Amino acid sequence: MAVNGGEVAVALDVGGTGMKCALVGADGAVRHAERHPTDAERGPDAVVETILTVAEGLAGKARADGLTPTALGIVVPGVVDEARGVAVWSANVGFRDVPLRELAARRLGLPTALGHDVRAGGLAEARLGAGRDAGHVLFVAIGTGIAAAHVVASSAATGAHGAAGELGHILVRPDGPICGCGQRGCLEAVASASSVARRYAELIGPTSDGGSAADAGPGRTMVTAAEVAARAAAGEDLATRVWREAVEALADGLATGQALYDVETIVLGGGLAQAGAGLFDPLRVALRDRLTFHREPRLVPAVLGDEAGCLGAALLALDKLETP
Amino acid sequence: MAVNGGEVAVALDVGGTGMKCALVGADGAVRHAERHPTDAERGPDAVVETILTVAEGLAGKARADGLTPTALGIVVPGVVDEARGVAVWSANVGFRDVPLRELAARRLGLPTALGHDVRAGGLAEARLGAGRDAGHVLFVAIGTGIAAAHVVASSAATGAHGAAGELGHILVRPDGPICGCGQRGCLEAVASASSVARRYAELIGPTSDGGSAADAGPGRTMVTAAEVAARAAAGEDLATRVWREAVEALADGLATGQALYDVETIVLGGGLAQAGAGLFDPLRVALRDRLTFHREPRLVPAVLGDEAGCLGAALLALDKLETP
Repeated sequence: MAVNGGEVAVALDVGGTGMKCALVGADGAVRHAERHPTDAERGPDAVVETILTVAEGLAGKARADGLTPTALGIVVPGVVDEARGVAVWSANVGFRDVPLRELAARRLGLPTALGHDVRAGGLAEARLGAGRDAGHVLFVAIGTGIAAAHVVASSAATGAHGAAGELGHILVRPDGPICGCGQRGCLEAVASASSVARRYAELIGPTSDGGSAADAGPGRTMVTAAEVAARAAAGEDLATRVWREAVEALADGLATGQALYDVETIVLGGGLAQAGAGLFDPLRVALRDRLTFHREPRLVPAVLGDEAGCLGAALLALDKLETP
Repeated sequence: MAVNGGEVAVALDVGGTGMKCALVGADGAVRHAERHPTDAERGPDAVVETILTVAEGLAGKARADGLTPTALGIVVPGVVDEARGVAVWSANVGFRDVPLRELAARRLGLPTALGHDVRAGGLAEARLGAGRDAGHVLFVAIGTGIAAAHVVASSAATGAHGAAGELGHILVRPDGPICGCGQRGCLEAVASASSVARRYAELIGPTSDGGSAADAGPGRTMVTAAEVAARAAAGEDLATRVWREAVEALADGLATGQALYDVETIVLGGGLAQAGAGLFDPLRVALRDRLTFHREPRLVPAVLGDEAGCLGAALLALDKLETP
């Protein structure tokens, strides 16, 4: 399967619970993939050590297979300063000002890029995935949280401090629920997968039998956002209401994104985007309703799944070889 | 005064009522400036003819002064497709899909750039003005309307269709007033200079004597936004309320801009920014209150005044010489 002597990038997408890792050719083809637990509760030093060990292992695996590892790409969540190669603030992983690029470059002796997981995922979708034919792409990942990447001419905007694209933390409902960031009414607090699940649980209340829902604790019914979407599609009133609130808020957020970025294509990824037509059909209508003089962007589902971040890490590594 | 044989760009900033025009050296120095009425009510063809005649006149003036006109830059409001050189939609000027770059290049025989007035103004502030030391700048013009330019590495983002940076048309008050664009609760509908004046007039009502206010029509008191700011500073209750509403909405809008763009410096221009400390002091506090994990940008007044757009037109023209 492996091409003898082929050059590959070593790529790691480090999340709060697991790391997705791969060897990726210059053509974007995945030659080998593996996953490891992050075990973030061990603290940042232990996580860094695991990252470096896994990366070394991947480079060794490449060589054993007759491949040549030429560059390393690592992406992490949170605030990432790509220019300095520092993981500034990653709550899930426990990083705070970790100079991960230098640590990894020193250990492996390879040109190394450090990136942001959602920006890397957006880069991969824009170059290899659902945004392939567009010069201006907004990638929006909707899962536990909501984050975005604005990709223009195959480059994801980082911002001045590595914090661009925080679409989850724009105000959409001034009197809305408190967000994890401390503000009130952020898009993420209304329309993330976890917010949809929480809102439905709140409304259905502790005394309901909850139908087929799993019981999440004493007297509390908890169903996933996907199940809320399915119940809405089946015509259940409460689910329909919660789903519509989320779709309306998402449309407000995407309309704001379009007003500021003016893209050709919006790619939706993450768990919530799996809802398919149940999300995309009403969201397209709601977005269209909000656009006046702005052109309507194409609104499409991501196609690379949860490998997007890892592929993006490989792209960042390969880019490093072109502009060292 | 003119340097013999010096090279200059011919620059025109075309607005709904007037055109600001200049001859600008490669160092950004204005060698000559003049203004002309636009008289947009004559229709787009007549306005185009005036633009071309004025541009020709400026080039002739340059040559008569011993200068060499090397490039032409024209900026207009609305939706401008810089890549194709087309004024797509400029309500104030009456343009609809006018291929102004080609028309001007053919008439004057000079390399010609067509740009957007606020993006050009932002470019000038970022390179020559209040954002001079920052790599990532958000320029926000607050006048009759609100528009913004995101400038990174000395280039203003245009978007896929020439419509990026429409900060005035993001949702900040879901139940707010109807905006000129047809949507409800846009930032522009709450916090532009004209919205502030209108809101104050509504609240003070037709039966009030209005103090020192000018009477804008039968039974209707109308004072400018600047006067509302002054009355708020003097402690008048109604003015304080209207001004606070505008500042809060602006802070929401700027916080959204910072979440998506992550800039170092926000430069505020346009009429409302003339309010000085009466605007900047409460706005800085309100913006700080809204930022959680984001870095607080510097918030500073524009310094180039109403010449910014014309200077930006010259910069676009000069850039054209470097990357033809």
